[in-house]
Amino acid sequence: MDKNNFALTPPMGWNSYDYYDTTVNEAQVKANADFMAAHLKEFGWEYVVVDIEWYSNDAGTIRDRFQYIPFGDVEMDAYGRLQPSPARFPSSADGKGFASLAEYVHNLGLKFGIHIMRGIPRKAAHENCPVIGAGETANRIADPSSICIWNPDMYGVRDTKDGQAYYDSLLSMYADWGVDYIKCDDICDSRLYREEPFLGWEETRMLHRAIEKCGRPIVLSLSPGPAHIDRAWEYCKYANMWRITDDFWDDWSLLKAMFARCELWQDHVRAGCFPDCDMLPVGKLGKGFGQEWETRFTKEEQRTMMTLWCMFRSPLMIGAELTLLDEWTLSLLTNRELLSCMGRTCHGMQIMRSEEQVIWKNEDTESGRLCVALFNISDTDAVLSVTLNELTGARGSDDGAGIDENAGRSGAEGAESEKTLYELWTKEESRTVSGKIEAAVPAHGVKVYRVGQ
Amino acid sequence: MDKNNFALTPPMGWNSYDYYDTTVNEAQVKANADFMAAHLKEFGWEYVVVDIEWYSNDAGTIRDRFQYIPFGDVEMDAYGRLQPSPARFPSSADGKGFASLAEYVHNLGLKFGIHIMRGIPRKAAHENCPVIGAGETANRIADPSSICIWNPDMYGVRDTKDGQAYYDSLLSMYADWGVDYIKCDDICDSRLYREEPFLGWEETRMLHRAIEKCGRPIVLSLSPGPAHIDRAWEYCKYANMWRITDDFWDDWSLLKAMFARCELWQDHVRAGCFPDCDMLPVGKLGKGFGQEWETRFTKEEQRTMMTLWCMFRSPLMIGAELTLLDEWTLSLLTNRELLSCMGRTCHGMQIMRSEEQVIWKNEDTESGRLCVALFNISDTDAVLSVTLNELTGARGSDDGAGIDENAGRSGAEGAESEKTLYELWTKEESRTVSGKIEAAVPAHGVKVYRVGQ
Amino acid sequence: MDKNNFALTPPMGWNSYDYYDTTVNEAQVKANADFMAAHLKEFGWEYVVVDIEWYSNDAGTIRDRFQYIPFGDVEMDAYGRLQPSPARFPSSADGKGFASLAEYVHNLGLKFGIHIMRGIPRKAAHENCPVIGAGETANRIADPSSICIWNPDMYGVRDTKDGQAYYDSLLSMYADWGVDYIKCDDICDSRLYREEPFLGWEETRMLHRAIEKCGRPIVLSLSPGPAHIDRAWEYCKYANMWRITDDFWDDWSLLKAMFARCELWQDHVRAGCFPDCDMLPVGKLGKGFGQEWETRFTKEEQRTMMTLWCMFRSPLMIGAELTLLDEWTLSLLTNRELLSCMGRTCHGMQIMRSEEQVIWKNEDTESGRLCVALFNISDTDAVLSVTLNELTGARGSDDGAGIDENAGRSGAEGAESEKTLYELWTKEESRTVSGKIEAAVPAHGVKVYRVGQ
Amino acid sequence: MDKNNFALTPPMGWNSYDYYDTTVNEAQVKANADFMAAHLKEFGWEYVVVDIEWYSNDAGTIRDRFQYIPFGDVEMDAYGRLQPSPARFPSSADGKGFASLAEYVHNLGLKFGIHIMRGIPRKAAHENCPVIGAGETANRIADPSSICIWNPDMYGVRDTKDGQAYYDSLLSMYADWGVDYIKCDDICDSRLYREEPFLGWEETRMLHRAIEKCGRPIVLSLSPGPAHIDRAWEYCKYANMWRITDDFWDDWSLLKAMFARCELWQDHVRAGCFPDCDMLPVGKLGKGFGQEWETRFTKEEQRTMMTLWCMFRSPLMIGAELTLLDEWTLSLLTNRELLSCMGRTCHGMQIMRSEEQVIWKNEDTESGRLCVALFNISDTDAVLSVTLNELTGARGSDDGAGIDENAGRSGAEGAESEKTLYELWTKEESRTVSGKIEAAVPAHGVKVYRVGQ
Repeated sequence: MDKNNFALTPPMGWNSYDYYDTTVNEAQVKANADFMAAHLKEFGWEYVVVDIEWYSNDAGTIRDRFQYIPFGDVEMDAYGRLQPSPARFPSSADGKGFASLAEYVHNLGLKFGIHIMRGIPRKAAHENCPVIGAGETANRIADPSSICIWNPDMYGVRDTKDGQAYYDSLLSMYADWGVDYIKCDDICDSRLYREEPFLGWEETRMLHRAIEKCGRPIVLSLSPGPAHIDRAWEYCKYANMWRITDDFWDDWSLLKAMFARCELWQDHVRAGCFPDCDMLPVGKLGKGFGQEWETRFTKEEQRTMMTLWCMFRSPLMIGAELTLLDEWTLSLLTNRELLSCMGRTCHGMQIMRSEEQVIWKNEDTESGRLCVALFNISDTDAVLSVTLNELTGARGSDDGAGIDENAGRSGAEGAESEKTLYELWTKEESRTVSGKIEAAVPAHGVKVYRVGQ
Repeated sequence: MDKNNFALTPPMGWNSYDYYDTTVNEAQVKANADFMAAHLKEFGWEYVVVDIEWYSNDAGTIRDRFQYIPFGDVEMDAYGRLQPSPARFPSSADGKGFASLAEYVHNLGLKFGIHIMRGIPRKAAHENCPVIGAGETANRIADPSSICIWNPDMYGVRDTKDGQAYYDSLLSMYADWGVDYIKCDDICDSRLYREEPFLGWEETRMLHRAIEKCGRPIVLSLSPGPAHIDRAWEYCKYANMWRITDDFWDDWSLLKAMFARCELWQDHVRAGCFPDCDMLPVGKLGKGFGQEWETRFTKEEQRTMMTLWCMFRSPLMIGAELTLLDEWTLSLLTNRELLSCMGRTCHGMQIMRSEEQVIWKNEDTESGRLCVALFNISDTDAVLSVTLNELTGARGSDDGAGIDENAGRSGAEGAESEKTLYELWTKEESRTVSGKIEAAVPAHGVKVYRVGQ
Repeated sequence: MDKNNFALTPPMGWNSYDYYDTTVNEAQVKANADFMAAHLKEFGWEYVVVDIEWYSNDAGTIRDRFQYIPFGDVEMDAYGRLQPSPARFPSSADGKGFASLAEYVHNLGLKFGIHIMRGIPRKAAHENCPVIGAGETANRIADPSSICIWNPDMYGVRDTKDGQAYYDSLLSMYADWGVDYIKCDDICDSRLYREEPFLGWEETRMLHRAIEKCGRPIVLSLSPGPAHIDRAWEYCKYANMWRITDDFWDDWSLLKAMFARCELWQDHVRAGCFPDCDMLPVGKLGKGFGQEWETRFTKEEQRTMMTLWCMFRSPLMIGAELTLLDEWTLSLLTNRELLSCMGRTCHGMQIMRSEEQVIWKNEDTESGRLCVALFNISDTDAVLSVTLNELTGARGSDDGAGIDENAGRSGAEGAESEKTLYELWTKEESRTVSGKIEAAVPAHGVKVYRVGQ
Repeated sequence: MDKNNFALTPPMGWNSYDYYDTTVNEAQVKANADFMAAHLKEFGWEYVVVDIEWYSNDAGTIRDRFQYIPFGDVEMDAYGRLQPSPARFPSSADGKGFASLAEYVHNLGLKFGIHIMRGIPRKAAHENCPVIGAGETANRIADPSSICIWNPDMYGVRDTKDGQAYYDSLLSMYADWGVDYIKCDDICDSRLYREEPFLGWEETRMLHRAIEKCGRPIVLSLSPGPAHIDRAWEYCKYANMWRITDDFWDDWSLLKAMFARCELWQDHVRAGCFPDCDMLPVGKLGKGFGQEWETRFTKEEQRTMMTLWCMFRSPLMIGAELTLLDEWTLSLLTNRELLSCMGRTCHGMQIMRSEEQVIWKNEDTESGRLCVALFNISDTDAVLSVTLNELTGARGSDDGAGIDENAGRSGAEGAESEKTLYELWTKEESRTVSGKIEAAVPAHGVKVYRVGQ
């Protein structure tokens, strides 16, 4: 089992959090899965992910005071393993867990994922639960000094034989259920403690080992970010995805900041290893947070987001309630030409970035197909350009930050053969002029071209 | 009630931790109190302090694995307040708490102190205990994200009306017991969390308010250190003592490092406000840690420690088991002339500090008595000196770090009248020569002189 | 010579920078001195300070490109000491320096101050100038790795015998000129280098020694800030004033931020030792910066600033061109009752601070006069209050940050005797009600009361 | 010109610094080049690099006081470009620069490199030199606030058109001379300034552009380290090599620390892009520093160093005086089998690292040749092992940090076919046993095996 074979291209799917917060139930998950199978699957979308607190019997009941209720009512089996709340997931009754729901999703030709918190339930530790395969009870496996800052449910698991046994027992159960994808939270950037800000590595390794043992190819996704660039090689070794930001929402300042994050991580995208820009907050959002809203992103901003995620090859997880998607949003998510940049032999690279504009290219090393995106991240419309020369360096020859023509990016001397251009959002065709791609781009918007041979 | 009247001079006493770790019992406390009354009280020693885990029924039972047992067996009343373990403190049976032990100590003419951990017991939170005077139960008062890194017993208390009620209920009980001194732990430097490394301020204020309300002058001591110098004014406002180091033990490198800490805090010592150098690890130590040992400090080092603590005016808390004190150690702790530097109208100040030597003075602004200490903190014997001129500047005129005679400390031109000198440890008398105090000081040792008129 | 006798109360005066930038000349300095003698001196204002670049022959000539011209034309004597530019200060011709201008100021009953940059001129080092009293030339005294980030004129001076000789030669010349006050720049917070961000201590000590040797009581003021609180004791030992902020200008966000700075430094104000809030940017400003403007502070904000500076006992240096002062601004600077808070036996203390309001008191420990200021630092008008109880604790009993009446500041139980109140800006009289001082305070404004006996 | 074609494999050569410090001369460079051509060239060694201060006429003359003489005597042309000191490099007389020496090296079939400091000479700035192709003189091109902490010769160059012109004029001259390699110092990690510790990026880009314009494929090497991992993608874009450590010397603690550095950078080694472990301090060293010495590394340590550098694929630069190489050291540097790991299609990867041991593999993706190195970095001899399974994961399947057999590295279940082993230092052959490579490795030593098919 080589974890790099579990996800050869960036995973694409739907996640319940942005719309349902902590409250999603079985019927809602099924409805979204149905929609995906009917309308999105053919474009590559396949994961259906149940996010945080599916084990809580009281999640959302005092939402004005707590998103995560301290010392709340969680569903747990006799071995300290959290179970779906039966009131919310009726098919889980009698200890069946998510097996039935996973089967439903599989029957649609899709994959099933769940969210978990790093660790073992505090309840298990305070009640001295037995743990399958372990010599000691949960109070000796839990580390009382390892908590999550923002969620009160768990203690960290000690890096011992019995700690590994706990994770093995978890993954064995998940494999039995038919889980294909785990989003583990409070593990990528913990913020706990001054001297050693990240204490999740041991548990990342334990999870990785438990997956290898469980015999099922389960994609491992780590949250929240920002991930630590100095451990890039280690994320690559143990996980399939890792968040490069804290939670991403429909706020331009967060989207603008993502360009610096993609720049930082651009050399770490490859089969089985995907730095993750987080979910796409499009369409209808936030019902579980108190009040449903329509994404605050403009259409330009949504195209910018989709384009960046695809050029960079981030995983794509839709935040919207799918059954409420309008036509325009559906079209945003099903731009087949853009989505082809996610392919296995594709490679994205930043050409330049300033405070006003960013240019990326994405090349299919097999077919030679080349796309280039001109992002206008300033607050006013602008004409952006890039020369063909700049696109052809092995790693991009320059950043264009020069102060004038002579010092800056090289000209188009070698532009003997002009190229055709095809813009992926408008479907308009045009040609380069003097070896240059030039476009009027609205504020916060993007033009993305496939460059002809 | 002005907290600055609770301790006009630095508190002096005995603390159970260095010898007993988490295991001290009633008979042992009484024996130490008896010894103090008989041999130390006349020199100013008065506090008898029961340190950490007096509420634990299983403390020390698996000491090879845990100093503080996770999810251990703690004694607690119906309102979430920890009680002395009755097996260890028999007089506490039937909910009497420390009242009887405090009375015993008071009858000896001494004062009684206890250690507490910041917060409310985790057990109280997980069991939803009622809290006296509060509208909600402990699970709503406890903050599940506020823990101690090294001790698993408590959750932090929320800064709310009900949180204050919990602390009020605690202090009311302590006042009823007759407690004179509280050493609160995990509150001065918490190390929890990257962005905001200290989260104990709110609880410091709540404790302060609860003390004001309880009607008893209870000295508030904060641990562990190092305290944060940028909050010096705030410690002064709410507490009587605060630790300026992490735990101090019988190790020369820690003692040497204390000179920089005293330098840092020298301007913040005044009535009711005492930066704290921590306990004196002298005599017999460590039985509760597994194996009793004799202090690893040499006699020179012990004199250096006592002299620095007194010149600076740190609180003095003896770590030794008192009943096992030898004659020499007893004499170390009862140097009446040195202890007079702790007086209310005394003021300590560093004259200079280098990697090799440190010079302090301590002046009684009322009587004019002037003491000067020459510390040799290098590893070889050396001759140290200071001029009378250097001792007389309002704030000391120079640090002596100059590179030669001309650039450095000024000479003794004005030494028309030589002074008599009296060394406080050897009791030897001598005189200044050319306005200079000069002494051969052994490595790690000190000479401390009272300067005649 | 005890430097703490050089400035028993916070220095008050005028400084050329805020109006003239780098360009002030002799006639302008004299005009301001004349005005001070005629209108301000009787209120305690006495220092006339010539700020940065008085030695530059080309300062201001290419102001659009450089505030400080790299490798510019500086006036220097044969021993590497900068001299007033004769074109700008005609009386300095023939090597007379500032002697004549200082005499002019002295004859008005005022004191004369100058700005200097830490170090020795780069020009002196590159030209191997001889240095009075030193065995080696300037190229061996200058440290080529010690520069100022923002000003290109100097190299730092090595902490050697010859380095001290250079500073001695400087101070000897300044004493000959009759300088009473030196504002040394690039020495309080250097920002140079990652590992050791401050490298000015050695030069602070060298300056201090040179002042002691020069025989003239010259006030030493250190810039820029923010000063480092962990070295508070050391500033107290060597300097008379030190900046607790970076440059302060007429911007509300900077003024609001000053409250946190004053809180931080409140325990370090005493005779000879004054944390410095920087100049008062009132009246006409900025002509040398390109375009004269009227202070952007509202009247409320100016009263807030003056009140805070006085309650805290910061030095006061007027930034305005004095000859252009209007009546209102003159009255702002001559509130005799407020200025009396600067007195030698006065002591300021913060009672509470939140994001919306701040309360300070200032007490004359000799006369018993008590003032209390209620600052509204929010953006909307508000009613603020403080109880007499809160004003009488030795250090203030509470911060008032409690969440409700019970947990918060104590009530007015002891208000048997109500007090008279006199507001220092409006001159209105009133009385406390139920032991409480209560006032409607406009946004960004202040009410400051003298509390009757 | 694609800079990634300038160095397809890690550069290998000799550098004058470790033996000659700042003092190497023409005859010495030639002697080392001769030796390389005769004895090392056939193994891939080809660069001959003249290190720091070749432009100094007084380097080394007061070595007890300064390594780099402040305001020293540097050789410079009329356009502010440093020239070889003619006394040390006679062939450079009459403005010929290094052309003759480069030709000599080229005629041996080798390549010629020089060290430069980032920036423009301070002397040029203070003398207002003209700059070829620039509108302004050196005093406007130099940034007086951009210096090197440890070397006093230069000012940084402003990122302007004229700044680029200066670098263009430099590179044009170097290309004329025939330079093949530039080691630019004070550019990779500057340590200057607190808020922005690295200010060399602009100059890195200017150098890169100047190289592209100069028409000669000049390898760009950046010093000193440690390079910043968060800018890895940017080093890859502009440079060929960048130091991942501060200066490396013959000290075990530095060598041990290199394992963590190689771990950190392992994913950033590829054609044209080589993280650099610094020079190999073997053989005779240090004559220019005052006293020649023999490397302090043991033979075991030297083999460990060579093996790590080769497995990781660091550039290799010999620090020894080549003409004094003994047989053993020569054999160390000419292990053809080990050096083959440096090949273009080779890839190194860390298998595991703990405080006691480190395991790396290096695989030729074309030929399939697999080498594995077992490093014992503890201070006692030990038996180390690795399973074939662990070597075959795409990215290595685990780190082996598990606490026991079950939790830890997987066993050798699939070892149906044992492999032959060939140890590269001892030339001994052996076989795996139960799919495991096991070896007794001395303290600080290494065993490195080629694994048979």
